[in-house]
Amino acid sequence: MAEQFTIQQPTFKIYKDKVLSNLRHMILKSKAHGAELHPHYKTHQSEEVGFWAKGEGIRSISVSSLSMAEKFRDQDYKEITVAFPLNRRQIDDINRLAKDINLVLTVVSESGVRFLKEHLQAPVKVALEIDPGYGRSGIEPDDFKTIDSILEIAEASSLLQADSFMAHTGQNYHAKNTAEILNNHAHTVKILAQLKSRYKLKTSLGDTPSCTVAEDFGDIDIWRPGNFVYYDLMQQQMQVCQSEDIAVSMLCPVTARNHKRKEIVIHGGAVHFSKEKLQMPCGKEIYGLPVIRNGEKDEIPEGSYLKSLSQEHGILQCSDDFFRQIDEGDLLEILPVHSCLTANLMSNRSVVV
Amino acid sequence: MAEQFTIQQPTFKIYKDKVLSNLRHMILKSKAHGAELHPHYKTHQSEEVGFWAKGEGIRSISVSSLSMAEKFRDQDYKEITVAFPLNRRQIDDINRLAKDINLVLTVVSESGVRFLKEHLQAPVKVALEIDPGYGRSGIEPDDFKTIDSILEIAEASSLLQADSFMAHTGQNYHAKNTAEILNNHAHTVKILAQLKSRYKLKTSLGDTPSCTVAEDFGDIDIWRPGNFVYYDLMQQQMQVCQSEDIAVSMLCPVTARNHKRKEIVIHGGAVHFSKEKLQMPCGKEIYGLPVIRNGEKDEIPEGSYLKSLSQEHGILQCSDDFFRQIDEGDLLEILPVHSCLTANLMSNRSVVV
Repeated sequence: MAEQFTIQQPTFKIYKDKVLSNLRHMILKSKAHGAELHPHYKTHQSEEVGFWAKGEGIRSISVSSLSMAEKFRDQDYKEITVAFPLNRRQIDDINRLAKDINLVLTVVSESGVRFLKEHLQAPVKVALEIDPGYGRSGIEPDDFKTIDSILEIAEASSLLQADSFMAHTGQNYHAKNTAEILNNHAHTVKILAQLKSRYKLKTSLGDTPSCTVAEDFGDIDIWRPGNFVYYDLMQQQMQVCQSEDIAVSMLCPVTARNHKRKEIVIHGGAVHFSKEKLQMPCGKEIYGLPVIRNGEKDEIPEGSYLKSLSQEHGILQCSDDFFRQIDEGDLLEILPVHSCLTANLMSNRSVVV
Repeated sequence: MAEQFTIQQPTFKIYKDKVLSNLRHMILKSKAHGAELHPHYKTHQSEEVGFWAKGEGIRSISVSSLSMAEKFRDQDYKEITVAFPLNRRQIDDINRLAKDINLVLTVVSESGVRFLKEHLQAPVKVALEIDPGYGRSGIEPDDFKTIDSILEIAEASSLLQADSFMAHTGQNYHAKNTAEILNNHAHTVKILAQLKSRYKLKTSLGDTPSCTVAEDFGDIDIWRPGNFVYYDLMQQQMQVCQSEDIAVSMLCPVTARNHKRKEIVIHGGAVHFSKEKLQMPCGKEIYGLPVIRNGEKDEIPEGSYLKSLSQEHGILQCSDDFFRQIDEGDLLEILPVHSCLTANLMSNRSVVV
């Protein structure tokens, strides 16, 4: 009996063919635009996916913390960029890591680069983060005073080398449509071009919406998107990808059914999906969508969605028809709203197909 | 220089004295009401906190998954209740665990208990989950047909023993005030009393708001709250606890400052706090509140709050005064919105004081 249950608990499913297809598409596109792809590994944080990317020719990568850089130190990349403002409290780890690998650190202030100059014991490159209107972090694009100071301090240090201007058009994750994405992206390309022309440094950008839908990248040198390797419902709703491109899902056991409300209780909650939600065009907020794999054609049953999550429970609202097909003990497949956060939570229980 | 940075990365801080005080208070209260406290370990999932609770006299516990029961199997509890509808896909794990410990499983359907009867290889007790109006899972309190069938099937099995009726007044986590909590709780107490009188089984309830603020528990036998061991901003906003009772916080390095917007970028994002947010009375949505520990008196600086989270970044909106006190490289202490989800994410990096 029980042997049939090869999947017993909430499990993250990774479709290798979709991952490879997403990777190959982005590698080809960046090459066509004369740029290098340094994919952001914060999305998958997976050594296995890292090896696949290496197999496809990826030589340099981006990460969002020093711990993540440490995780991939042994995969022998040409360069690892920590695309996160310098955390000076980790200076000891930085010094250890910089002895082993080519490390690019992100600086956003004169005080940060001065700290590096005073405490570095091994060479690093620095990327100057520029805020392209996202309003999260980074130097204002016309704050030449700060940029000049940072470059001056770096130049005075034998261990520091100014490498690039880096921007993240993060406002694209809240864009309402493709036009808005393209508009934000054009602004980023423009300010990076101005900085490149003034300072003769490389430029780098990286958000999945722009890198997927835009066609004008000027002479940007490096792309750093991350989410594209998996995509998710957020990207699908923005029309950045199709649901067929979503390379991951959650497998969740059905543990209860409510006939009256046509609801299914799954083992799969906030500690598996994350609490990221998405507002559908109809106004409903969802935490995921069920998908039925039917040979060639995937089907998302209409009127069925993950309506709420508590710590371990998920409540799936079902259409009458979908409800009838499901029994306690079944395994449902559910597309995540935000694959990066789901992958982060599920790093210990995944299956590759 | 660097030795001063004992905390280098986002770290979960646990105040042992507050945990012990919260535990002792709840143990005394449950005893005064003639009930046994079987605290829900989903909140902390920590072996260390488990040992503290054992030291305070806790003999039986609740968990929300079989994996969590496995984690605590060696702490030698009298009984572990998996307060989550039976996941029959884990029947092999159930059989293994039931040979070692006294396991209580939650059933919500005739089909579930029949599955157990057919596949069990070791004795277990079952709790029948009753829905007290929360609408997540459980049998309707007046569905005597289902209850009778479950009890009949259990009685016909030498390995199954019907143990109790269990209810979770989960709607209390969305209550607007104490009156609403008390009202919901009174309903739960009433339906459990009716079931106890009809079937002569034990009764059990467990949500932190009720167990903290209610004073009328009828003759409920078992309390299963979990969050009270740590509390959090959600409970504080509902006036279930004071901010002084919150026994955990996040320590986050400051990595950037924005003078114009009076914003601080911290290393501390959705992968540390979770994306759970809280709407303040003023309408603002927040992901956490900074706290300044000033000897005897804690201070939450007015007009300062964690306004947004991405994967690893947190943006803290600051008052002018609070902003002036903070530098890059500082370590901020931030109270979490939902301690259970934050504790789950931070299980690998915590410090006890």
